[in-house]
Amino acid sequence: MNNIYIIGVGLIGGSLALDIKSNYKHAKIFGIDTNDSHLDEALDLSIIDQKATYTDLVNADLVVLSIPVDKAVLELPKILDAISDTTLVLDVGSTKNPICKAVSTHKNRRNFLATHPIAGTEFSGPKAAIHKLFQTKTNIICEVEKTTFKLQEKAMQLFSNLGMRIRYMNPEAHDKHIAYVSHLSHISSFMLGKTVIEKEKNERDIFDMAGSGFESTVRLAKSSPAMWTPIFKQNSANVIETLEEYINNLKQFKTLMESDDFDEIFNEMQNTNHIKSILNGIA
Amino acid sequence: MNNIYIIGVGLIGGSLALDIKSNYKHAKIFGIDTNDSHLDEALDLSIIDQKATYTDLVNADLVVLSIPVDKAVLELPKILDAISDTTLVLDVGSTKNPICKAVSTHKNRRNFLATHPIAGTEFSGPKAAIHKLFQTKTNIICEVEKTTFKLQEKAMQLFSNLGMRIRYMNPEAHDKHIAYVSHLSHISSFMLGKTVIEKEKNERDIFDMAGSGFESTVRLAKSSPAMWTPIFKQNSANVIETLEEYINNLKQFKTLMESDDFDEIFNEMQNTNHIKSILNGIA
Repeated sequence: MNNIYIIGVGLIGGSLALDIKSNYKHAKIFGIDTNDSHLDEALDLSIIDQKATYTDLVNADLVVLSIPVDKAVLELPKILDAISDTTLVLDVGSTKNPICKAVSTHKNRRNFLATHPIAGTEFSGPKAAIHKLFQTKTNIICEVEKTTFKLQEKAMQLFSNLGMRIRYMNPEAHDKHIAYVSHLSHISSFMLGKTVIEKEKNERDIFDMAGSGFESTVRLAKSSPAMWTPIFKQNSANVIETLEEYINNLKQFKTLMESDDFDEIFNEMQNTNHIKSILNGIA
Repeated sequence: MNNIYIIGVGLIGGSLALDIKSNYKHAKIFGIDTNDSHLDEALDLSIIDQKATYTDLVNADLVVLSIPVDKAVLELPKILDAISDTTLVLDVGSTKNPICKAVSTHKNRRNFLATHPIAGTEFSGPKAAIHKLFQTKTNIICEVEKTTFKLQEKAMQLFSNLGMRIRYMNPEAHDKHIAYVSHLSHISSFMLGKTVIEKEKNERDIFDMAGSGFESTVRLAKSSPAMWTPIFKQNSANVIETLEEYINNLKQFKTLMESDDFDEIFNEMQNTNHIKSILNGIA
């Protein structure tokens, strides 16, 4: 892999660029981004070697599409139009059904692999890019059978070099389950942040009382609205279902408190404690 | 300070013992605990030097009461009965109004200082004790004026040696605000864990899909129900109010999603993003 094109040089695209540079010494990294200042930053930070445009994609060995998911479904067909027969195109979005549907009948569908590396931080932009972000992380691959065998192999070699574990799922199952283990967490965190800010807006000192526990639960409320709004929109039916269940559980907890049933509150917490063993292994 | 008595040798009591040992080379640390195996563990780990009982408290320079808050309100009067005139007694519980009330008319009220060090982890027991847990952390002191001046001074010297920042509040304000920045976080985390476990109980592999974001938001769901149930009980009115507001914010978010108002969802998230600057400074 010599010519690598990163479309969207933010946290994920930038981190992939850094790791690809370390693993493929002869690779030249090209950056494409609607935000020109991000491209300049990425150049300054040596995340990319050169700016590029879609007309250059015909030379690409690998194209990584790492832009908000609403833009990704619009751009991917154009990218598949622009590449050569041997180009591998990956997306890395947090929803998989809409993007798989968007190119299901594209003549170059076989050049595309739908992936979701479960990695990231609450930060965004090229400055947020970090080395080895993907090491030991899970990468969920959807509709692998629709990608040509040679390009599957190339992708798996890349993920292996980056230290990732691979899981295969269909896009519908991915979107349903990721709503629980990722999208809902972001909403619970944003709404927790909102609740506390609303209450405490006149008493900023109060945040002196906040400890690492609060920091941990609201960390995701620092995430980018530009990235997350389209995710919630594309996965709206699944996310609404998870929210419904979460709200019901909170209401039930509140009812237990209102009826002074602290034995049952103890049980609720004890039953959930085994999240400890479930989470063993998550970095 | 030579004779230090730690009542409850868990995460907080044990960590305080470790730091006191480092700061007061001549101090002898005595442990008192209803759980004898915890005392043995604490001895093995050199957290305490010796087991003790309440009848020994007359020799204490310092008594740290670090047991669940429902037990603390019952034990504190007995402890104040047992000490000498020069003993400083600290509690470290996450609710402050009930314990201040429990001893408001005790003849040795002036020997007691109500504190809440905002420090901890999701783990519990003597094995969870760690060095320098309190460094740079906030310690909230309530009703400082009710403690004798000499013992106030002794306490402040201790907190300063441990590297803590001091904030003074009345117990009612403490309990009201801590419900937002600590107690609510624990419930949101427990209920998030519950929602995901319920949904995914037949598909344990799904947790392979969980990343560091999920781990961060459910971290507090590993916390001890024995510690947290009495906190919720003692602070029930405040916690119910925070839950009400949190649930309303989640419902409103769900309504926005159901009505496809993603512009407003973007705004909601952007408005909450400034939690970034608010949290600057929290470790």
